[in-house]
Amino acid sequence: MNSIKEYIELIEKAVKASVPETKGHLEGISDMLFYSLESGGKRIRPLLCLEFASCCGGEAEKALDYAVAVEYIHTYSLVHDDLPCMDDDDYRRGKPSSHKKYGEANALLAGDALLTHAFDILASSALSAEQNIRAVKELSSLAGVNGMIGGQYIDLAYENRNADADVLFTMDALKTAALIEAACVLGCIAANADEGKISNARKFALNLGLAFQITDDILDFISEEKSSDEIKGKSTYTSIFGLEKAKEIAAEYTEKAISALEFFGENANEIRLIAEQLLNRNN
Amino acid sequence: MNSIKEYIELIEKAVKASVPETKGHLEGISDMLFYSLESGGKRIRPLLCLEFASCCGGEAEKALDYAVAVEYIHTYSLVHDDLPCMDDDDYRRGKPSSHKKYGEANALLAGDALLTHAFDILASSALSAEQNIRAVKELSSLAGVNGMIGGQYIDLAYENRNADADVLFTMDALKTAALIEAACVLGCIAANADEGKISNARKFALNLGLAFQITDDILDFISEEKSSDEIKGKSTYTSIFGLEKAKEIAAEYTEKAISALEFFGENANEIRLIAEQLLNRNN
Repeated sequence: MNSIKEYIELIEKAVKASVPETKGHLEGISDMLFYSLESGGKRIRPLLCLEFASCCGGEAEKALDYAVAVEYIHTYSLVHDDLPCMDDDDYRRGKPSSHKKYGEANALLAGDALLTHAFDILASSALSAEQNIRAVKELSSLAGVNGMIGGQYIDLAYENRNADADVLFTMDALKTAALIEAACVLGCIAANADEGKISNARKFALNLGLAFQITDDILDFISEEKSSDEIKGKSTYTSIFGLEKAKEIAAEYTEKAISALEFFGENANEIRLIAEQLLNRNN
Repeated sequence: MNSIKEYIELIEKAVKASVPETKGHLEGISDMLFYSLESGGKRIRPLLCLEFASCCGGEAEKALDYAVAVEYIHTYSLVHDDLPCMDDDDYRRGKPSSHKKYGEANALLAGDALLTHAFDILASSALSAEQNIRAVKELSSLAGVNGMIGGQYIDLAYENRNADADVLFTMDALKTAALIEAACVLGCIAANADEGKISNARKFALNLGLAFQITDDILDFISEEKSSDEIKGKSTYTSIFGLEKAKEIAAEYTEKAISALEFFGENANEIRLIAEQLLNRNN
């Protein structure tokens, strides 16, 4: 049974229900959080979280809080990334970005609120205290200075100079793959998976994350529209390696990601499907 | 025995040790976190956390991680508050603020990193999973949209119009008192205190937080230097109530804070001392 569609519906409902209620003078805050959470993302991270929970023998529904918490972290990172002092993007998925809609100061607060509430969601989950605190530990470290924030820091540091391949891989492993890793690992934790499964989930996520980024570069290159990175003079996989070699590297990481799934046997069939759909966008 | 000095030393050491190590391309991030964490704050929140742990019969040392986590939240809020889109403050305790030193984008990331790492610290504490997850729950909700962030949101909403007394109290209860509440409650949790103690700690914190803010306004008024709020045309307790009435209100909240400590008997002697020192600044 392919339950991807069903999972996405669960996620959409859970994201809606997760926004904290605010009253009186605070009423406007919930609207800001809704606005950014409901801006049409593909929900790849929460989907992977549910899929790993199910693949490890757990009930996907029980991982819903963890899935939503990861989506909150992803959403806050977009809101802060769009701010004028960062990427200065006026639009996000065709809608005005948070600071264009609510002003810079409010967008800053909205991002802080999404980040903070992610941990409230984990702490309120009905899973055991041991599972919840491990989820907090994984999410905070993978979203932190040696994870996602570290990747953004490198991105900033190389804003006005060329990055070499090593920098580019480190940056994307942190900026993109780390949060995908959090999604997969939190799914495993929700299913009380053993360390062997968790370590293979990490391997899958790292390679998927890298393949995903390289594929993005390739798609930008092929579409012959300059990507925002190229416009800013930043290095990309295609600018460093050329199109053909970049395609080879993407294929390599894809293969590594898929082979990390072997450990899970047939239980990982849906994850395999998701990975292939994500990575074959350039064919 | 008065152990305030000893506790402050413990806190300073623990704050230093808490900054996550970063290597290679990420090395600069730790420096940014250090810079803001070491900018000469009075450590009132972590001190209250240790004091409540001790007052509830626990060992103060065991509450150190919780105390440091609260200080991380306080520090991130200052870094983000100082940004140009918020208060636009170039200096913080006599030193250039984070964005003047590292640039706006990096200061934004440093704030996000401090906020994220607060939860990593809680999740890494050696206390039980039950205690740690409750600490995450309390800190994330008291620092969130119905806590500290909510207070900042109201502050922004009233930037260009007068706040009445009701707005001012709500704002300060959230902006200032909520994080003090988190500090006191986390100290109680570290000592496995019962709900009666926790509820009196909350009462103390709310009243102390309000008394603290009103005292700040009074001190600004008396010093005959216009406070930054007044310069911006914001309402203050003295502008709404006048000096004498504001003093009365501050005394009222101080009394309520002190009387919430009766529940703890002599064990709360040091907390009483700290509260009196904080609140008698205007005599």
